[in-house]
Amino acid sequence: MKTRAAVAFAANKPLEIVELDLDGPREGEVLIEVKATGICHTDAYTLSGADPEGLFPAVLGHEGAGVVVDCGPGVSSLRKGDHVIPLYTPECRECEYCLSRKTNLCQKIRTTQGRGLMPDGSSRFRFEGKPVLHYMGTSTFSNYIVVPEIAVAKIRPDAPFDKVCYIGCGVTTGIGAVIWTAKVEAGARAVVFGLGGIGLNVIQGLRLVGAEQIVGVDVNPSKKDLATKFGMTHFVNPKEVEGDLVAHLVELTKGGADYSFDCTGNVNVMRQALECCHKGWGQSIIIGVAPAGAEIATRPFQLVTGRVWKGSAFGGARGRTDVPRIVDWYMDGKINIDDLITHTMPLERINEGFDLMHEGKSIRSVVIY
Amino acid sequence: MKTRAAVAFAANKPLEIVELDLDGPREGEVLIEVKATGICHTDAYTLSGADPEGLFPAVLGHEGAGVVVDCGPGVSSLRKGDHVIPLYTPECRECEYCLSRKTNLCQKIRTTQGRGLMPDGSSRFRFEGKPVLHYMGTSTFSNYIVVPEIAVAKIRPDAPFDKVCYIGCGVTTGIGAVIWTAKVEAGARAVVFGLGGIGLNVIQGLRLVGAEQIVGVDVNPSKKDLATKFGMTHFVNPKEVEGDLVAHLVELTKGGADYSFDCTGNVNVMRQALECCHKGWGQSIIIGVAPAGAEIATRPFQLVTGRVWKGSAFGGARGRTDVPRIVDWYMDGKINIDDLITHTMPLERINEGFDLMHEGKSIRSVVIY
Repeated sequence: MKTRAAVAFAANKPLEIVELDLDGPREGEVLIEVKATGICHTDAYTLSGADPEGLFPAVLGHEGAGVVVDCGPGVSSLRKGDHVIPLYTPECRECEYCLSRKTNLCQKIRTTQGRGLMPDGSSRFRFEGKPVLHYMGTSTFSNYIVVPEIAVAKIRPDAPFDKVCYIGCGVTTGIGAVIWTAKVEAGARAVVFGLGGIGLNVIQGLRLVGAEQIVGVDVNPSKKDLATKFGMTHFVNPKEVEGDLVAHLVELTKGGADYSFDCTGNVNVMRQALECCHKGWGQSIIIGVAPAGAEIATRPFQLVTGRVWKGSAFGGARGRTDVPRIVDWYMDGKINIDDLITHTMPLERINEGFDLMHEGKSIRSVVIY
Repeated sequence: MKTRAAVAFAANKPLEIVELDLDGPREGEVLIEVKATGICHTDAYTLSGADPEGLFPAVLGHEGAGVVVDCGPGVSSLRKGDHVIPLYTPECRECEYCLSRKTNLCQKIRTTQGRGLMPDGSSRFRFEGKPVLHYMGTSTFSNYIVVPEIAVAKIRPDAPFDKVCYIGCGVTTGIGAVIWTAKVEAGARAVVFGLGGIGLNVIQGLRLVGAEQIVGVDVNPSKKDLATKFGMTHFVNPKEVEGDLVAHLVELTKGGADYSFDCTGNVNVMRQALECCHKGWGQSIIIGVAPAGAEIATRPFQLVTGRVWKGSAFGGARGRTDVPRIVDWYMDGKINIDDLITHTMPLERINEGFDLMHEGKSIRSVVIY
């Protein structure tokens, strides 16, 4: 069949809207009509050429929502018409990782996914007879995609695609880091570094679990109002702090944060996030993606006196199990996604979405097919 | 009263055996006759002058066992004749830290203890009329000591002082890191870096909880036999590994350690300990004390893909609650202390104990009063 897609033919070039050939679903796979997709920093990172694992040509995009339109043989948990969110972190429920009960990082199809291929080692996209690669196992910048059943979360049919697509990455990454990685308890004090899309979702995750103090840290004061709406209780602009930022945050949180979250990707900020944690038990969660080769550092005394340094990928969420729950929370009004989606556009104008992101004008742009 | 003590009059000088004046116990304090004390690397570290918090003149020593000989007013949990282990990490059971249920680092008397003083700000030791400082709140290199009730673990009366004194620091630090900090579960795979006194106690802690694979790493092959006796299942000498040590350990543990422990204090080893952990869930625990100012570093990707970096102080043990349990484990034959105490000596020869440590000839030397 044919599918309209925005293709990254080369690093650091605008995407091109073309028609691709798409092979249908095979054993254990489904064909999905993507209805909407967010544009995420990770797409931009790969497109820029800075991602050492980036491959071209490829169909980027990993934050989609849509409808199952066909199932390959052996598919048992999905059927035609199901509303779904494709998952860049699958959940096979049978690999060593899924069965460990300690991680969400299912490795069942990791190798082929990392090479831009389907689990059988093939690409299903073709342009003018030549293969075009998949991306993060999802490629939601194509109107139709083929994905393995284990990489699909089935969601309720009344959830709007143009909102819940954001649960495919950003919302889950932020809220999940609070709930599943850090396991923040009610009454906790938390500090969130970076008030972009991820940081705002961390903040509303903290509000959801009943955190007592939610400190937001950002050098851009224009972030304050929306962060406050999402649950931030204190705003700190490092540029306005006299003296040491860490000492200021420790004082503000009456001894240090019970939990801190880095949503910046800056390794110096990651250090501050750790060191502003409370002696004895403070946990710092790294969410941001650092530049290739960058390193975090601290004195081991910080850890020996009880701080814990962790990271979070896809919010620690098991996609098939937890993503539908987050969709429910959105539909029940427990979390706010609408205010985070600042721009929508048709696929033809997808490059404008990247421009808005680079210019800092959007929180999230969503392409509606 | 008078007490015989080995006094550190200045950094980097041998201890001197002298008679000190000792003031008796005040409100909430007890007088203990120390019967035996281990000599620990931390004493040597402070004595060397490298410890930025080291103060002189002081009575060092923090790994003792003895008998309560007098109680000050208001002491309710101890009485004359009780067998005890003094605690450099107290357990007041009422400060924010004790009540957090997340840490063993009771802060009730932290400030004065760090300054070498009793909680009321005084020193009880005097030499030729001038004050001599306490050390780590214990000063077990004195035959008699005054300590606060909250810094005393009451133990069973049939436990031999010259063995269980080691539970005052080394045994608890190693075994506790496994049980209370890492919470290792049966069937786990673990890697232990450094097979000195702490490393051997980590190893027997791992055996105690039923770890499946216990890999010991040390550049000194003479450590192998005793470590094997304590439960080590695989020995790795980094000098004999061709290529990358981390990759070798990941292969040996079939994907990485579920838990790793640094018992070296070397920040480069700490990095290897983290990076040999299993993707998704491996936890690395820093136990060793690094040189002042040294820093640990890694790529944040190590954490984002699920590894956790932690530290452990006094094995995460709450002294009054957990130390008596470890004494029971020793008396029940569940853990081995006898083979770790390689030398004993009277107080007059305490400096020989330091020499044996520096020469690598002892695991633990114990002074018997």
